This record gives sequence, C-alpha cells and structure tokens, in this order.
Amino acid sequence: MKAGGRKGKAGRQESPAPAIPPSRHSALGGGAEFDRIRHIVARLGSSAGPIGDDCAVIPEGSGRLVASSDLSVEGVHFRTEWLSLKEIGWRAAAAALSDLAAEGASAVGVLVSLGVPWGATEGDPAEIMAGVGEAVASVGGVVLGGDLSGAGQWLVDVMVLGRAERPVTRAGARPGDTLWLTGRLGGARVALGAWAQGSAPPAGARAAFAHPEPRLAAGQALAAAGATAMIDVSDGLGGDARHLAAASACALEVDLDLVPVHPDVIETARREGIHSARFAALGGEDYELLVTMPHGFGPDGAARISRAGGVPLTRIGAVAPGSGARFRLSGAEIDLRGFDHFAGPGPVI
Amino acid sequence: MKAGGRKGKAGRQESPAPAIPPSRHSALGGGAEFDRIRHIVARLGSSAGPIGDDCAVIPEGSGRLVASSDLSVEGVHFRTEWLSLKEIGWRAAAAALSDLAAEGASAVGVLVSLGVPWGATEGDPAEIMAGVGEAVASVGGVVLGGDLSGAGQWLVDVMVLGRAERPVTRAGARPGDTLWLTGRLGGARVALGAWAQGSAPPAGARAAFAHPEPRLAAGQALAAAGATAMIDVSDGLGGDARHLAAASACALEVDLDLVPVHPDVIETARREGIHSARFAALGGEDYELLVTMPHGFGPDGAARISRAGGVPLTRIGAVAPGSGARFRLSGAEIDLRGFDHFAGPGPVI
Repeated sequence: MKAGGRKGKAGRQESPAPAIPPSRHSALGGGAEFDRIRHIVARLGSSAGPIGDDCAVIPEGSGRLVASSDLSVEGVHFRTEWLSLKEIGWRAAAAALSDLAAEGASAVGVLVSLGVPWGATEGDPAEIMAGVGEAVASVGGVVLGGDLSGAGQWLVDVMVLGRAERPVTRAGARPGDTLWLTGRLGGARVALGAWAQGSAPPAGARAAFAHPEPRLAAGQALAAAGATAMIDVSDGLGGDARHLAAASACALEVDLDLVPVHPDVIETARREGIHSARFAALGGEDYELLVTMPHGFGPDGAARISRAGGVPLTRIGAVAPGSGARFRLSGAEIDLRGFDHFAGPGPVI
Repeated sequence: MKAGGRKGKAGRQESPAPAIPPSRHSALGGGAEFDRIRHIVARLGSSAGPIGDDCAVIPEGSGRLVASSDLSVEGVHFRTEWLSLKEIGWRAAAAALSDLAAEGASAVGVLVSLGVPWGATEGDPAEIMAGVGEAVASVGGVVLGGDLSGAGQWLVDVMVLGRAERPVTRAGARPGDTLWLTGRLGGARVALGAWAQGSAPPAGARAAFAHPEPRLAAGQALAAAGATAMIDVSDGLGGDARHLAAASACALEVDLDLVPVHPDVIETARREGIHSARFAALGGEDYELLVTMPHGFGPDGAARISRAGGVPLTRIGAVAPGSGARFRLSGAEIDLRGFDHFAGPGPVI
C-alpha cells in the first residue's frame, strides 16, 4: 500500500547542493518522494526559505506564526466509497492541523482550496467544508477563506496557520533524551487493509482513519514541558523516526515492544502473520506525535501531558549518538521501512 | 469560454442566512459559483471566520498578516500544450500573489501544494516550482514550504502570506470616489481564444496569459495613497466590478471607452465583430487591479503610482450611490457579464 504523500514537505538536502547552505533547511530521510523534494529545493535556490519542518515559521511580534499545507486527493488519500464527504473534510483538515500539533502551536485558522468533480451536487462542497469546519473548531480555529475550482476528482488542500511562542522543530533531539509517542498506531492501516480487500473495516479502525484527532492540546503541553523535537506520525513510525533522526543529526532507538497498538490491529496482524507492533509501526495516517523529551522527563510528566492532551503518552525509546533510526522487537534489531508515497503509477491506496 | 474559478473565495451572503451575521463577511456578486460559496458559508456557521475578501486578515503585532489561496488545475486553468511547466508555476503563483496586491500588502512568502500526474518525470515538479520561485522572488518573497501528492492531473495550489499596515478590502468604496485600473485588459482572452481555435496566439497576448505580473508594488502605492477599496480583475471587469460594488454597498459606473485594451485585442475583436473594449472587459485572467480612490486623487497621483508600480494607472469611472455595476460604451449603457466559472461539466477553458 502506498499513499500520495503526507511528509512531502520541501526539505534540506542530506548531500547539500552548492546553492543551498545546508544549515538553512531541515534534513529528511531517504525515499523517492524526498528525492523529489531535494530536487525542488536545489532548483529553487535562493528563492526557497528555510524549509523542511512540519511547518514554516514566520517571526511575528513576540511569538511566531507557523504555517503548513496538506493536500488530500481522491483516489490517493481517500475514496468516496469509504468516507462520507463530511468525513473527507474532517480528515483532510485534521491531517493539516496535525502539522501544527507537531510544532507545539495553537491554531489560528485554515484556508481551504477545494477541487470539485464535475458531477458533484450543489451541496457537496458545503458538506466537505462542514467536516473541515468541525475539525478546525475542535481545536479553537476558524475557516479563514479559500478557493474553489472544478477538477477531475475531489481535492482538499488545507493550509493551516497557527501561533507558537517556541516552535518545536524536528531538529532539536539530543543524545540522552527519551522518545515518546501519543496514542496508539495501526488503526488507519487496519481500515485501509479491509477496504483494499473489499470488506468493511471494524468500527474502531474505521474511526481512526476517518476521524483522526489532531493532537494540538498534547503538542502544546509537550512544548511547554520542554520537548526538544517533534514530528507527527503520518508516514508511519519507520519513516518519521528516520526524518526526526536526520533533522536532529542523531540516532533514535525505538523499542517496538513498547509501542501501543490500536486494538483492531491484533486480529488483522495475526491473520496476516505479522507481529502486531510491526504491523502498527508500518502503518501511516495515524497522526500521532513522536516527540523527544529532555533528561528528567518521566512518568509524572507523561501523566500531566496525557491529562492536558486527552491522549496517552508512552515512552517508546531513546535518543543516542549516531544517525538513523534503529528498531528492536522482542530483543532483536529489525528493518522497518515507512511506506514510500511516490512510487506511483496510478492511485495507490 | 469558462475557467475554473478565480474569485471562488468564501463570502458573505447577499441574503444572509440566520446563522451568519451579515456584517461578518464580504458580499459577493451573483453567479452559480458564488451561490456555492454562500452555501458553504451558511453550512460552516460559526466555524467560518470573517471571510470573503481577496485575503483573510489576521491581527499581528502592529500590522496585519494577510493570507489567501489560489488553486490552478490542469485542464481548467491551463493546459500543458499551451505553457511550459515553468510558466505554469509562474502563472499559478502570480494569480495567488495578485490577491496580496489587491490588499495593498507586501509578500512574505508562499506555501505550495503540488499534485503531480503519474507520468511526470523526476524533474517536472522542480520545473513548476522554479516558475513559482521566480514569481515569488520578483515581489521579494520566498517559498516557505508545501506538500506533494500524486494526482490525476497537475494541480498547483499556492497559499500566499503577506503583511499590510492597513489592508485595503473590497468594502470601502464611497460615492464620490473615482474608479481606476492598472494596466490593460484582454490579452489573456486573446491567447485563450487562439488556443481554443488551435492556433498560436500573438506573442504579447501569450505573455499576458503565461507571465502575468503581480501588481504588488502598485497595490502598496495605491494603499499608501489612500485607496478606499481594491480587487484584482481575475474574473473579468464585469464580474469583479460587481463584487466590489456589492462589498462596498454602492454603485460603480464604468466608462468602457476609457478602459485600456491590450494591443492584440484589436485584431481579434474586429474579427469576432465585438467592440474591443467589450471584448477586453469580458476577458478574465488579466490580474490587474481595480481600485477606488478618494476625492482629490487625480492625474498627478496616478503618475506617481504608475512610476512606483511600473504600470499605467487609468481612470475608468466613478462610485455612485446605489448598487451594482453599470457599464457605458459609446454613450449607451450595455450589459456586461464576467464569465461564470462553475457552469461545468468538464474542463472548460
């Protein structure tokens, strides 16, 4: 299974091109999609800002304005047979808002560009926007505006604007930090797997895909508690751990036995003969937060974050000197790859 | 000819729905596309911000942050047989930046969500982004970030962020103001007409469509000179004059004999048996500024704006009590409609 690009944010080269001072951008892990981004950044030259984190950061008065965009395409990120239009709107907005969460930001609002298929009814765009509006209102933001166009399929591009006193980038993790995860992984993968086989997913897994909760409250609480680096797990734990490690220029050691899995994962993983933690860690689209916390942050701090954010926070590993992400399962190191979004051809969910 | 929606910004209802206080949003003129927007705003209820101008306005320190998005879709707004990928990128960015110009804002930067067709080569997205980067750099901004996805056709959604001390909305025109236009109209329509007939457009008309200059310098100079209301002419003078009149709750009187037309209009309009000013005023996609100036602004002020903005500024009418836009040509009132973007079905340029 491949989807059409959640972490496709323009980013710093790992092997810097002459035109781009390597310190200006945020390093990304490997993969064809990220090669495209490196190509774009090289081609942009000096017209690229310091890009590559979950959000762009713009100085603003005493704090920072942060901005990000997230494009959802019918047939790539969702199908109308799977989700109601309102769910499509919620999910697209939640995916974009998740980038604010990963920056420790609060939401100001969103701009939404909507591509409307030619056969849509008069009320369809409003139905999508109702879902967008509910997601944005759930985190205290508003719909600021947007654009409409006819298109060959539904497109929902959500641009989020937020504020952060101290934006948490992917780049601040240091050896000695501990590694934590909000929520649990794998629910969205269970749902996608069921749909791919033409069956109806279990209700819980379906909800994980259709109605992800953007973790803005948890993200702000984590930032206030001293988070050193943060990223949202949209491409799968495997890929996103590598992105965070690359941006921070250190190594992440992940203990997959500690990763909480969505309850619907158990049965599906058993049927497919995959360890449930491996199944969950390879799934994308979960929109939980992967965060490094400084030495001294422990169970009491985690309990406070869980209360403030309304979501469990679980320690799943540590930061070490070196590079890349290493995954251990039942005592052995395993190879874990996040899915590569850009291997096309054709709609690929 | 119809295109896929340039002024599809969420906007205030002309007949306010109960949930939406009419004063919060900006009134739009008539048309099916704008009915969709009114529907969306009604459905959003309290989760809609005060939307409907060229840009959303966000309080920020001593000034204002302004933001807007503009979606360009292959087969709706452009075809790859017409434009190079770099031109597609320039044009998409210029269309979005034009909204900043219409607010009297300076550019901070852009976020770009790019939908990439399955058959695209590795370098194609970077080629589009090179055009985006050049357009943004031409007005002093940078590419802040973005998102990538596979898609059924090229999509370029550009979100612009800018700053304005005093954003100029569409809503401030008052009877007694005079009405002005930057540049000249109709070039893009000539190019689109030629392509529709399978012929190559004249070079000047082609450039008007492929490489519109976003009028940020002129917009800022107009704002500093006291502009009372401003809009960019993306949907045609007919439609955009009506939008400005509706938002300002007054009437615009436009003398079409005064509207400067692109030189390539003359021959095409003659061949089609249409008065050249009518032809030019019905064309969209020109991205010039339509602006109302206070009593006392005259030729000297216009000369200063022209110098600062690098584009002619021409008086084309006046603001009067009443509502709507009235167009006179050779002494007679004529009916002039901007094109309606949302009449589908199918790609329609």
